[in-house]
Amino acid sequence: MNPPPESTSASPIRAVDVIRKKRDGAELSRTEIEYLVRGYTTGEIPDYQAAAWLMAAVLRGLTRAETAALTDAMLRSGEVLDLSAFPAKKVDKHSTGGVGDKTSLILAPVAAAGGLLVPMISGRGLGHTGGTLDKLESIPGFNVNLSVLQFCRVLESCGCAMIGQTAEIAPADRKLYALRDVTGTVESPYLICASIMSKKLAEGIDGLVLDVKTGSGAFMKKEEDAAFLAELMVQTGERMGKKMAALITDMDQPLGLRVGNALEVEEVLQVLRGGGPEDLRELCWELAAWMFHLGGLAATITQGRHTAEQLIVSGQALEKFRQMVTLQGGDASVIDNPGRLPKPRHTLDVVSPKSGYVKAIQCESVGTACVILGGGREKKEDSVDPAVGLVLHKKVSDRVTTGEPLCTIHYNSQALADRAKKLVEESYEIANAPPAHPRPLVHRVITTSVEAN
Amino acid sequence: MNPPPESTSASPIRAVDVIRKKRDGAELSRTEIEYLVRGYTTGEIPDYQAAAWLMAAVLRGLTRAETAALTDAMLRSGEVLDLSAFPAKKVDKHSTGGVGDKTSLILAPVAAAGGLLVPMISGRGLGHTGGTLDKLESIPGFNVNLSVLQFCRVLESCGCAMIGQTAEIAPADRKLYALRDVTGTVESPYLICASIMSKKLAEGIDGLVLDVKTGSGAFMKKEEDAAFLAELMVQTGERMGKKMAALITDMDQPLGLRVGNALEVEEVLQVLRGGGPEDLRELCWELAAWMFHLGGLAATITQGRHTAEQLIVSGQALEKFRQMVTLQGGDASVIDNPGRLPKPRHTLDVVSPKSGYVKAIQCESVGTACVILGGGREKKEDSVDPAVGLVLHKKVSDRVTTGEPLCTIHYNSQALADRAKKLVEESYEIANAPPAHPRPLVHRVITTSVEAN
Repeated sequence: MNPPPESTSASPIRAVDVIRKKRDGAELSRTEIEYLVRGYTTGEIPDYQAAAWLMAAVLRGLTRAETAALTDAMLRSGEVLDLSAFPAKKVDKHSTGGVGDKTSLILAPVAAAGGLLVPMISGRGLGHTGGTLDKLESIPGFNVNLSVLQFCRVLESCGCAMIGQTAEIAPADRKLYALRDVTGTVESPYLICASIMSKKLAEGIDGLVLDVKTGSGAFMKKEEDAAFLAELMVQTGERMGKKMAALITDMDQPLGLRVGNALEVEEVLQVLRGGGPEDLRELCWELAAWMFHLGGLAATITQGRHTAEQLIVSGQALEKFRQMVTLQGGDASVIDNPGRLPKPRHTLDVVSPKSGYVKAIQCESVGTACVILGGGREKKEDSVDPAVGLVLHKKVSDRVTTGEPLCTIHYNSQALADRAKKLVEESYEIANAPPAHPRPLVHRVITTSVEAN
Repeated sequence: MNPPPESTSASPIRAVDVIRKKRDGAELSRTEIEYLVRGYTTGEIPDYQAAAWLMAAVLRGLTRAETAALTDAMLRSGEVLDLSAFPAKKVDKHSTGGVGDKTSLILAPVAAAGGLLVPMISGRGLGHTGGTLDKLESIPGFNVNLSVLQFCRVLESCGCAMIGQTAEIAPADRKLYALRDVTGTVESPYLICASIMSKKLAEGIDGLVLDVKTGSGAFMKKEEDAAFLAELMVQTGERMGKKMAALITDMDQPLGLRVGNALEVEEVLQVLRGGGPEDLRELCWELAAWMFHLGGLAATITQGRHTAEQLIVSGQALEKFRQMVTLQGGDASVIDNPGRLPKPRHTLDVVSPKSGYVKAIQCESVGTACVILGGGREKKEDSVDPAVGLVLHKKVSDRVTTGEPLCTIHYNSQALADRAKKLVEESYEIANAPPAHPRPLVHRVITTSVEAN
């Protein structure tokens, strides 16, 4: 253990006193939180003091003011994009992660086609959930590693751009997240909120729509936990002057019918062409409507939905997607010819063992099956196979007969396919009747800045 | 941050899972606690994981089983003295620290003279409290840094020996304490218990009497906090097969009349010669009686007190002290000629500003006054001046008249004396009447292994 820094006259705050204050349940001042974040980012405050503080924060919780101060300090630990030269309203969407959730790839071009600027910085898949960057990279040549300058040029040309985290954005979050990962301090709504919001607000946006997932495939299985985090993020964003809305949406079964990187891009293209699965379309129009509403382009959610649907029907959203793919170095020919996307060597059906109705799908297991096939990551360092995944034929409430395919597994390794098949078989629950009360797609909307509907 | 160790097949436990388990309030198994302590001591588990675990332990608390497992693991991180070759019962005393508390220097020779073996490993002063080792070192030549072999030889010759912490004893505690000190995780009764008990039980003792201080000069100002820690330590010791008793004793004013290293040795000699202040004598007989009782040499506490007083009257305790001082290299001539102890260059009286009664003495301030004079340590690295300190002339409930000395300051630096004087003046509260309900010396006794009185 290296000794902690001595307090100096320039910095009369001592880390140990700040830790003790939080340990005892008192509220930290903005100055104290800034001291911690800056000190940890520069390396002045050692890992062990940050770890003790994080655990105290997990167990004592943070007030709304502390959460906002933490978010702000983390945000200002790095570069904040200055998009003020762009006249359009900047609105982004963030999802807490799910299985088959490809909405970002649809929403960015839809919103840009409607006149918003969408500077989307996304993540990779981790655990059982997929990641936007992995999906985009299944398009041959698509480059998610743009510099800030390149990112701004794509934004200027087509109104949307989708990249990964850069070294300049919120370095405090990167360092803190790595520490949280190994010190059991990930699972705190306050720390999760500050982590998400610091990165999103560094995009220099005016408004943010949050898609907070709940159910068996979400990180927050319980709706009240999802709602708590959603409220925290909405309040934090509003304290920082942003237009905010959070939708608590269902992740008790996969979204859409396809899970896996290239497979999901195919489904994105279906939706952008006016087709695609009902639940995915429905959620996209709802989220797009909120983006338009927060960006001042739709007075009501109904009007926003109408705008989104028109942008699909007119083909403008698809054109926007084509532009973005081209500008980011991707092979745009896949758009008209999805057969050029990466394909697996084999497919295999999982069939229903009996007749009846799909009562439930253990959604996390479906996500894990995709990871097992090679379509996701168990560890950060893992590479992904863009071709593999699952195509569902049956979802909750669907009727099935004995031997009818529930799902088709797309794979490159028989051994992995066998493991995935077993997981999928176990994840489908077939009963004599469909669920009496199917779960809604949107559980509730949390917002204070605007009127819903 | 260096990466944490990967789990290996030989060690299926992962530190992060143990941290999360404690964070969520679950009880850790003995194996999990051993894994943490061993891993941290060897350096396999990094500081930041230990810090997160410590904070979770502070805020979630530990069960009795966890506290005992932690104590045991820390104890076994180093050497445990094997005193089985000695036929006598081995009984020690430990105090949580106070001002003017010189009982150890009296109890060790009294208990040894009565037939117990007292292998006493003590600490130095820190903060406002004094330390046994600093007091002993005011005797010219007294060596507290004996090897384990030398320690055993002194024990064999005279039945008691007093040394400092060695590198071999409970190294886990030394490493954990240093981390706790800078991560705000000192103040936890569970961690304090494990720290104290692991070191004391490494002495290879059969029984332990705890003197848990409460009041304005104690670390635990509130009696309920002192009682909680005392019960925890008694239960932990008993789980580990030791005879245990804890006395909650008063530290709302200094114990005895002298505070400061050489000054306290003078008072020790007074008591060993049959004199000395009433409260100090009283507490010594009570603690000695419990030591004899736990060691099976006294059926009752009354009988134990009688034994202790007889050992003073007969001069046997003083002779035992003389033997120990000689065997540990000290100048035993100070025993008959206390004038040979270190003396300050100056003295200065603090007088009463009015007539009345001493209603209270802010005990921590008196301890701090001694530290300011140079008699204690603000930081671990500080050296102490053995000659300085305070001689109280008035204690709580005493009558005083205007201008009458309350206390004499023994000092070597005028500037420091001025600061100490101000503190002492502020610490005496003079009122028209003595306190209506003077605090008892022994607040309560906590023990389950034996019958009190």
